[in-house]
Amino acid sequence: MGSEITKEFLEKIESLISDNKDKTLLTLLSEEHPADIAEILEGLGPDDATYLFKLLDSELSAEALLEINEDDREKILKNLSAEEIAFEIDELDTDDAADIISELPQERVTEVISEIDDDDHAKDIVELLRYEEGTAGSLMAKELVKVKETWMVPTCVRKMRSQAQEVRRVHSIYVVDQDNHLIGRLSLKDLLVASPKDKISSIYIPKVDSVHVNDKGEDVARLMQKYDLEAIPVVDDNNVLIGRITIDDIVDLIIEEAEKDYQMAAGITEDIDADDSIFDKTKARLPWLILGLVGGLAAAAIMGGFEDALTRFPELFFFTPLIAAMAGNVGVQSSAIIVQGLANDNIKGSMVNRMFKEIGLSMVNGIILAALIFVFGFFLDYNTNISITISISLIIVIIMASLVGTFVPLILDKNGIDPAVATGPFITTSNDIFGIFIFFYIAKVILGF
Amino acid sequence: MGSEITKEFLEKIESLISDNKDKTLLTLLSEEHPADIAEILEGLGPDDATYLFKLLDSELSAEALLEINEDDREKILKNLSAEEIAFEIDELDTDDAADIISELPQERVTEVISEIDDDDHAKDIVELLRYEEGTAGSLMAKELVKVKETWMVPTCVRKMRSQAQEVRRVHSIYVVDQDNHLIGRLSLKDLLVASPKDKISSIYIPKVDSVHVNDKGEDVARLMQKYDLEAIPVVDDNNVLIGRITIDDIVDLIIEEAEKDYQMAAGITEDIDADDSIFDKTKARLPWLILGLVGGLAAAAIMGGFEDALTRFPELFFFTPLIAAMAGNVGVQSSAIIVQGLANDNIKGSMVNRMFKEIGLSMVNGIILAALIFVFGFFLDYNTNISITISISLIIVIIMASLVGTFVPLILDKNGIDPAVATGPFITTSNDIFGIFIFFYIAKVILGF
Repeated sequence: MGSEITKEFLEKIESLISDNKDKTLLTLLSEEHPADIAEILEGLGPDDATYLFKLLDSELSAEALLEINEDDREKILKNLSAEEIAFEIDELDTDDAADIISELPQERVTEVISEIDDDDHAKDIVELLRYEEGTAGSLMAKELVKVKETWMVPTCVRKMRSQAQEVRRVHSIYVVDQDNHLIGRLSLKDLLVASPKDKISSIYIPKVDSVHVNDKGEDVARLMQKYDLEAIPVVDDNNVLIGRITIDDIVDLIIEEAEKDYQMAAGITEDIDADDSIFDKTKARLPWLILGLVGGLAAAAIMGGFEDALTRFPELFFFTPLIAAMAGNVGVQSSAIIVQGLANDNIKGSMVNRMFKEIGLSMVNGIILAALIFVFGFFLDYNTNISITISISLIIVIIMASLVGTFVPLILDKNGIDPAVATGPFITTSNDIFGIFIFFYIAKVILGF
Repeated sequence: MGSEITKEFLEKIESLISDNKDKTLLTLLSEEHPADIAEILEGLGPDDATYLFKLLDSELSAEALLEINEDDREKILKNLSAEEIAFEIDELDTDDAADIISELPQERVTEVISEIDDDDHAKDIVELLRYEEGTAGSLMAKELVKVKETWMVPTCVRKMRSQAQEVRRVHSIYVVDQDNHLIGRLSLKDLLVASPKDKISSIYIPKVDSVHVNDKGEDVARLMQKYDLEAIPVVDDNNVLIGRITIDDIVDLIIEEAEKDYQMAAGITEDIDADDSIFDKTKARLPWLILGLVGGLAAAAIMGGFEDALTRFPELFFFTPLIAAMAGNVGVQSSAIIVQGLANDNIKGSMVNRMFKEIGLSMVNGIILAALIFVFGFFLDYNTNISITISISLIIVIIMASLVGTFVPLILDKNGIDPAVATGPFITTSNDIFGIFIFFYIAKVILGF
């Protein structure tokens, strides 16, 4: 397994830095993986981090730069000149280079790009910066290995050798026609077992999955997962091969999306870590808490409106938290199923069907839970009318809550809004209010106050 | 992008099956991706699915079998003889074969294995079946390309050719010594640019990440994500190379884990889809709802104990849902941050530190929210003592809720229990009860009833 950066190790590095033991540092760190170097840089103060960063071989430091979290990266980049940044950028693949550059303040972007030595590299990066965030274009790299259908195997291997030196990892080899149109692929394995007398056109696989440069990142992720792809070529409107997306970037995207959805469901708006500052955490959490507060105030107002029942039917007020909690729980369950279904693209069939299924399900759950309340009420010697009121309300509130939980995300999704915002506090708060209102209204009808 | 299986397409297939148009079916489907064939099989009734499955070329049907969801796969496998299943298994990589076989009823397992033609394949599968679910061993495949350090490049290429025919995708090439100990790797790219006069020992990279066969799947996923690996070799206690894990299986694992955590946070115990049966959904959802119900009953009992306050301070009862909702929301937020932190392995530092940070954060949130309540109370002309009671309770309840949300998952994790169970209904329910109790107790002290 990978190495763990311990506190002791960090302290050792810090003392080596303060003693300017550059050689010892280089020997100690040259064998570390960039991701581990990144962890070390994150653990150091900004000055030490910059010192160490400048000291390291640019191949290692550039890769580490990619793995550092955004805040710490910004701190290091601030201390570097445009020329120094361009030097790091030269070591990176176009997609990673574009990611780093896009984080720079606008005025530095042009400066850094003009300092990049390799003109083709710079041109590719500028192209990538054009694509909108979240599209296939923003995820792809320009580096890839492509061969022409007209080549013979030995030509192909020779040409590939020079291309391969630019590409970190060769996945599939893409086959294009004279005009760079993507027409198929060649697996390395096939090339490995091919005879030197074969022509590419006779050994390539004419079927190749590809994505359009404007396709959404999540759709690319779904496709690559479904078809177990490790890289996918990206084409433009004319089916011209313009880049490729590799699975490591897709893995990061999948994890990021999952974390975002999870945090959204828990009522946290921004991507925060357990160790972020109180200010960052408050900014991420407070808005949802205020929403909850407003919901609670509305609930209080509704209950205030039924104050007349207070002395005759105090149990109604004791059971309000139960009704609210059940409405919230059911709503969150329903919405989570829909949000996941939408994310996996397996919400099919008509809305009406779904509604009937959802009502059926909540009736089953509601009746079982209502029966439990009734049994409980019997043993605790509740007034029968009160038990009936609570049980019936519970069934109706559960049905209502599951419909809200099901259809709010569906409607949001239809209107192009991320359905994940409808999970968590949003659903619980609105279901609390609806639930309490329905409960008291039914109680009024049954008990007559 | 990939093809979408439409309803019309499915109907066409159904009618071709009922007319026994085997040739048309084969022509129509032979170009489809196995994952799409799987979708078609899922969309058909069990008889049609079995008919089509048997009709298809075994290379295609075996791959499709892997992609079908478990329930539909079981239905198809039931209709196949042990010999027919073994025939499919022969087409699959050892890891996929082992996955399918492990789903069979115990009595069929031996039967199917004895029917597998290739003895080595059968032996490998039996080995894989031994590893515990969720370990690296259960994720790995036996197929890999390995070369000896003593070989020359041409020998290596020749030997690899025969190995490569067995391996669907060549990632890294692993380098072993005479006794099969893993000593390094050789990238295909390096081999591509090597000279025929090179010896493997002079061109291989002596540094290679590997995992132990008993390492946990999540740890393997974290490592592969951190280091952007597409395959990782698996070794036993003696560092002997015994298999490799590829990124496609890790992507599936990551998505599965994320979905499980998300569902757990929403109060859903089993992996269910939007279109599962009412019975399955009830089974997954009802237990958490019953937990919520018990919590609600406990809350009602607590409030019943403070019935004396009912006539004098009715507002307390109107504000109970607000207190409960805030306790629940804060608890879910705190627990979600911890659960994600644990999953990403970035919960560091001492417990005491974390406690103070958490108290600080909740004080900030609590005071802001309490101030809002106070302002609201002022405009609605609440009794000042009531406003003070609600405000102070809110601050204390928020602190308590965030501590529960933070430390319950941490304690569960320390005791080897999945901390994700502590998110969602579990935290909301316990915080509801604690919150309501604290609220009324503080009210009793301040208002004196």
